[in-house]
Amino acid sequence: MPGWVDGRPADSLSLKDRGLAYGDGVFETIAVRAGRPQLLERHMARLAEGCQRLALNADLIMVRAELLAFAHELGDGVAKLMLTRGEGARGYASDPQAAPRRILLNSPLPDYPAEYSDAGISLYPCNTRLGEQPLLAGLKHLNRLEQVLARAEWQGTDYAEGLMLDRNGRVIEGVFSNLFLVRNGALCTADLSRCGVAGVMRAELLAQAVGHSLEVHVGEITLDELVQADEVFTCNSVYGVWPVRALQARVWPVGPITRKLQHIARALLDA
Amino acid sequence: MPGWVDGRPADSLSLKDRGLAYGDGVFETIAVRAGRPQLLERHMARLAEGCQRLALNADLIMVRAELLAFAHELGDGVAKLMLTRGEGARGYASDPQAAPRRILLNSPLPDYPAEYSDAGISLYPCNTRLGEQPLLAGLKHLNRLEQVLARAEWQGTDYAEGLMLDRNGRVIEGVFSNLFLVRNGALCTADLSRCGVAGVMRAELLAQAVGHSLEVHVGEITLDELVQADEVFTCNSVYGVWPVRALQARVWPVGPITRKLQHIARALLDA
Repeated sequence: MPGWVDGRPADSLSLKDRGLAYGDGVFETIAVRAGRPQLLERHMARLAEGCQRLALNADLIMVRAELLAFAHELGDGVAKLMLTRGEGARGYASDPQAAPRRILLNSPLPDYPAEYSDAGISLYPCNTRLGEQPLLAGLKHLNRLEQVLARAEWQGTDYAEGLMLDRNGRVIEGVFSNLFLVRNGALCTADLSRCGVAGVMRAELLAQAVGHSLEVHVGEITLDELVQADEVFTCNSVYGVWPVRALQARVWPVGPITRKLQHIARALLDA
Repeated sequence: MPGWVDGRPADSLSLKDRGLAYGDGVFETIAVRAGRPQLLERHMARLAEGCQRLALNADLIMVRAELLAFAHELGDGVAKLMLTRGEGARGYASDPQAAPRRILLNSPLPDYPAEYSDAGISLYPCNTRLGEQPLLAGLKHLNRLEQVLARAEWQGTDYAEGLMLDRNGRVIEGVFSNLFLVRNGALCTADLSRCGVAGVMRAELLAQAVGHSLEVHVGEITLDELVQADEVFTCNSVYGVWPVRALQARVWPVGPITRKLQHIARALLDA
């Protein structure tokens, strides 16, 4: 199955696209089951926020309709939706009225080892720190060199994910996931107003936690607080929840709140 | 004339290229005159540094040969050379041995008004601040959303360039150029080890200044120091040097050191 560009099957894109030139766009990575995009409303909401903050003049009704049609054709897999500012002449200036380019790509559902979900994962402590840029923080935009550098720090299968701190040493997220910790029965995750990607599964779990009477804290998290946490897990909208089993010398059992949220995430993604 | 991808004429690129997915690559914008890339050695040196810091395993001898052949075909114009990490499966991890993709694009030499060079330009004071990321600072990489946001702050022709500060209010650069000031006969420009793009023309002017017995300072520049400077100018490797005539209420005459360096830059670009 080929990708789609602006609603038509395509495998390639103009060399002049601003997505390539400047990373000028946003994307969503969406689990698709039985032809249906999972967590659709949250993906669309984040996309809308990205378009608003980057002044991308997208027709989100059309984007949504194309995504639904693409997912229907895909069946089971992962749909990656990109919106770029389209083609431009050389230079950073753009036409504020130009319609963004709509790109859809498919890939198979990833085949992660069952132990990642069952026994949990080891986190690699990345040296790559996240820079602070409030204008871009939280968005899933196409400027992802920090994640590329962080992911290149480890090879092999000993580590399923990496831990990323900001330049002040605060705990922010995983390379391709968000991070939660449980402390005295409360759920804590980093504030992402200065750096980081505000994941769709993170938003969903925060909402679900409130519905399940779990106390929730979104704020600063130090490395000490992470190490001293009762439970730690990562999440994203493709795999759901992975318990964190180890970070360097610290080893955690898989805790009850992690399991509970993992079941909730699984139900959402298998729906 | 079409662009080239990996040495062959092409106008499009695979949707799976990591340049599009993550801005995973570097670029150079090179003035070409009479079939010859100008400031070639400095462009190649910056490219080499970018490849080294981003672990892009490029064959720079081949890149250089292709650039020369492309410029020969182009005659007069601007060649944009991009190196991306090529195609990948979904996800940030990449094959460290993969050869980067080589992309060449051409555009006409820009037709800037002569007054930009003669009488100078007004700088727009951008609200978009540069975030600090030492791992990427100085490089001309493909993650350029900060510049896109900054350039979108003004429309029309009253301002030819924008002034960008870092998040601490230090003076760093223009949106698509570097910035110099002259103070008591000495040339000053910002240190770019935490943010900013270390321009090829900036490097050349710093080297030339030393050859012309001009004192040179590379360090922190406050907004006050900029406003109190005797002369201010911007530079890049396409247009050379533009005197800065005005920043908000402050107006400068075009100073002698600016003119001298402008002539040097012009000679380099017309060579």
